[in-house]
Amino acid sequence: MTSTLSVFTDSPARHLVCRGCGTQFPLAAQHACYECFGPLEVGYDAAALARVTREQIEAGPQNIWRYAPLLPVGTDPASRVTLDPGLTPLVKADLLAKELGITGSLWVKDDSANPTHSFKDRVVSVALTAAKALGFTRYSCASTGNLANSVAAHAARAGVPSTVFIPGDLEPGKVVMSAVYGGNVVAIDGSYDDVNRLCSELTETDEFEDTAFVNVNVRPFYAEGSKTLGYEVAEQLGWRIPAQVVIPMASGELLTKVDKAFSELVEIGLVPASEWKVYGAQSAGCNPIAVALHNDTDEIVPVKPTGIAKSLNIGDPAAGVYALESVRRTGGWMEYVDDDEIRAGIELLARTTGVFAETAGGVTTAVLKKLVETGKLDPSKETVVFNTGDGLKTLDAVAGSVGPTHRVKPSLKSVREAGLLS
Amino acid sequence: MTSTLSVFTDSPARHLVCRGCGTQFPLAAQHACYECFGPLEVGYDAAALARVTREQIEAGPQNIWRYAPLLPVGTDPASRVTLDPGLTPLVKADLLAKELGITGSLWVKDDSANPTHSFKDRVVSVALTAAKALGFTRYSCASTGNLANSVAAHAARAGVPSTVFIPGDLEPGKVVMSAVYGGNVVAIDGSYDDVNRLCSELTETDEFEDTAFVNVNVRPFYAEGSKTLGYEVAEQLGWRIPAQVVIPMASGELLTKVDKAFSELVEIGLVPASEWKVYGAQSAGCNPIAVALHNDTDEIVPVKPTGIAKSLNIGDPAAGVYALESVRRTGGWMEYVDDDEIRAGIELLARTTGVFAETAGGVTTAVLKKLVETGKLDPSKETVVFNTGDGLKTLDAVAGSVGPTHRVKPSLKSVREAGLLS
Repeated sequence: MTSTLSVFTDSPARHLVCRGCGTQFPLAAQHACYECFGPLEVGYDAAALARVTREQIEAGPQNIWRYAPLLPVGTDPASRVTLDPGLTPLVKADLLAKELGITGSLWVKDDSANPTHSFKDRVVSVALTAAKALGFTRYSCASTGNLANSVAAHAARAGVPSTVFIPGDLEPGKVVMSAVYGGNVVAIDGSYDDVNRLCSELTETDEFEDTAFVNVNVRPFYAEGSKTLGYEVAEQLGWRIPAQVVIPMASGELLTKVDKAFSELVEIGLVPASEWKVYGAQSAGCNPIAVALHNDTDEIVPVKPTGIAKSLNIGDPAAGVYALESVRRTGGWMEYVDDDEIRAGIELLARTTGVFAETAGGVTTAVLKKLVETGKLDPSKETVVFNTGDGLKTLDAVAGSVGPTHRVKPSLKSVREAGLLS
Repeated sequence: MTSTLSVFTDSPARHLVCRGCGTQFPLAAQHACYECFGPLEVGYDAAALARVTREQIEAGPQNIWRYAPLLPVGTDPASRVTLDPGLTPLVKADLLAKELGITGSLWVKDDSANPTHSFKDRVVSVALTAAKALGFTRYSCASTGNLANSVAAHAARAGVPSTVFIPGDLEPGKVVMSAVYGGNVVAIDGSYDDVNRLCSELTETDEFEDTAFVNVNVRPFYAEGSKTLGYEVAEQLGWRIPAQVVIPMASGELLTKVDKAFSELVEIGLVPASEWKVYGAQSAGCNPIAVALHNDTDEIVPVKPTGIAKSLNIGDPAAGVYALESVRRTGGWMEYVDDDEIRAGIELLARTTGVFAETAGGVTTAVLKKLVETGKLDPSKETVVFNTGDGLKTLDAVAGSVGPTHRVKPSLKSVREAGLLS
């Protein structure tokens, strides 16, 4: 048994554990195994988790912190560095189901409703609460955009300096939203994978010694925040797990953590045991995990990402092998869709549900369509498709194809001539 | 006593009443008095309202429909046409308070958290639920942008055809978001006031007989939706009314309805009686209500709006005289700020609270600052400032002044040369 830092004494977390070799380490700002260089994740006291009840969660706040008893940090409200994200809408999507020929219940989990309008607020709240407990005094990240928006906003609310790193070619909405909170925004002449490598190097410098990079040196805590998406879906369905979930993949971490959340809920008895299938969605411009599945291999060949789904453009996905494991174990599948399909997916989701998704939500909607068409997903079973971001951040994706349907002068005559009065 | 349509039998609403001459009319799709042409509003059965309890509301859903017992429609969940907006964050703004020299509690009511990211989802949900009950089969509005976004999204979710009317020079984000849901979007070569006049004419045509224009022919119901912002603030403060509220003014309706909500809560005993002051915020480019107050007159002289706060650009404000009445009765004040102050307000709010507001939120923040500086607002008292929209919809307002602070190549050397490692 390893020792535990006193800052985590209120937590069910007990150690970090290597996902490769299983070696345990104390809860600290460490993300790679000293033995095998494998990634670390948070390990819990099973008995502590087993004591958590539905009633305890339901009595909690209307945000992710209702699940604090299942997270490594945040039990004490005063300890949190947070915008209080979560409990986003689970939207019944009957019109979308009808259009796709889905006869089972179909739901959209809409994480564009989070404070900075992406699911990243969940992981950032957990990561920065851990970072504060661990003594970090500056906040940072390597980001494809949404993460930078969230870290910068969290830092502003907390009054803590921040420096976020982004690829230089991001969408205008994501660049402005990273910068408006007043912290440093460093645009890198390179891809996200370049940004990520640079941030790994920076964590080793003296100048960034006091800086928590949410997805680098405190990554094990960061990743746990994604579990809340799985918890919420199950709770919002009345404490049961849907038969099928369609989840976007960038690093692959979100998919693995939603799957982990479902497993935990069964283990600790908060939901009945059931079978579920996990489906991963990528774009054709960045599909290394899906291609590995299609090729029936564990070897993920990094790619140089292209295409409009920039928030998913991680060419060397850190959790790809774990995503493959989840999908294979549950009997799901992975698919990828091209830019035209993504645009059509955004419009289809908007037109049938009133949810305006960013490109990543176009990816999951289009992949859902493809999975039904190819028979990989059972249209008679309950399905949840995830929208992780907001259409206002990727306006250019659809600005070329949607706009005013009529242009008129302010007169009945002009309206009549436009065909609106006939 | 006028008769009541059977569709409203579950409602505490009893009639429409003229705000001018007090004449009562049945609950119907009528917005102007047949006697004096004054605007109508919803009148309630005081005894029905008085039976509503805190416990009843707190046991309701986590959205505006928890206040259904205080609204004209929506008691039956199956009757609602809605994206379930509301219960948006009330954010404690300690850093903003400190920067402005405010020593009392300062809060930001952040309505950018609504489904289409503005407060309009509240009024549209109430208006369209009434419209459905009244038999309308198509949805429409005259809009400065946010309203069109909301009507189009509500219609998409409900599977009902929509046609929204907007000025031709709106921000790209608002145009795309109006169109992405697949309904008709009619861009008018003119101002909002032109759009509004045209829509009033269209309600009289045979072709639009079945169309509910949310802010024209069902306006009395629409306006009631704004009360939920006042209810929420009071409930989120632990069932009490703040001493001072700063509210943006376009038509002036939102301000009057928040004030009405506070009065109702006192009358029916849900909050203790207390004094509050209502402050109205406009832009220098469209300030007819504030100017009337400053000139100590009831005569509101219409203006031709200019400037970046387009969502507030109503030059001939329908509820201006009622806003004046609220502000004078409560001892508040009105101010207006220019485009540079609005941009600075957006950045100030973002930097100190993590809330990225659209120009309307820049207006209220900058007006709050001005009210403190001029001594019109008491910095020692509890204050709530309203943000009614989302910064992602008015990116251009700040895109010229915020952006990456550093541009580097993906190497430690380049980061060092940029001054980030020293």
